Amino acid sequence: MHRSRLSGIVIDCRTGALAEAARFWGEALGMNTRMDASGYVALESSARALKVLVQSVAHESRVHLDIETDNLEAEVLRLTRLGAARIARVKNWWVMQAPTGQRFCIVGRSEPLSGAGIHDWE
Amino acid sequence: MHRSRLSGIVIDCRTGALAEAARFWGEALGMNTRMDASGYVALESSARALKVLVQSVAHESRVHLDIETDNLEAEVLRLTRLGAARIARVKNWWVMQAPTGQRFCIVGRSEPLSGAGIHDWE
Repeated sequence: MHRSRLSGIVIDCRTGALAEAARFWGEALGMNTRMDASGYVALESSARALKVLVQSVAHESRVHLDIETDNLEAEVLRLTRLGAARIARVKNWWVMQAPTGQRFCIVGRSEPLSGAGIHDWE
Repeated sequence: MHRSRLSGIVIDCRTGALAEAARFWGEALGMNTRMDASGYVALESSARALKVLVQSVAHESRVHLDIETDNLEAEVLRLTRLGAARIARVKNWWVMQAPTGQRFCIVGRSEPLSGAGIHDWE
């Protein structure tokens, strides 16, 4: 058995000006911004039990969803059985592509999951 | 003064098979699906105070954010001052484009806003 949950929204911005991009999205959504050590800007959204991140990317701008799990390989297998494809392994996550075309990420956590929307999978 | 909040995530799928698309996303995110009268499929996400919708679209598949407001014109003006552009008016919402390129929607509500993340704008 393993667990997973929708953990966040990542706002991918094709820009070299990450602080400016994050300022727009923070103002747009009414959320304070906090630069993360890892190069993301986190928007304050704890009331939703959902991370909202802004990052600078080289590909086209888009919004993607993050699913977090306590067992990366089991969750990737579950999603591939549903029709998703593996695109690339990066650090502790897999970039996936849905059968409907959108990219999303599955992020492996070493700590137990917490927050809303946790699902147990057999 | 008017109010707005991040109200939801819309998973736009370029497909004629909406039920199948929604089944994938419901399973992927561990959320029950409910066909909406208006042609959306809602995913059960009330614990987040956030709507998650799947819809069939003619354009490329993507994920977009919805902001809801009690004053559509005031909120659209606020966002254009931040650098967003009006793309199209549809029913009770405006399709907008962020300065970072992503499309998003501002949805006008006639009832008072409720839920997490409501912001008062002067």
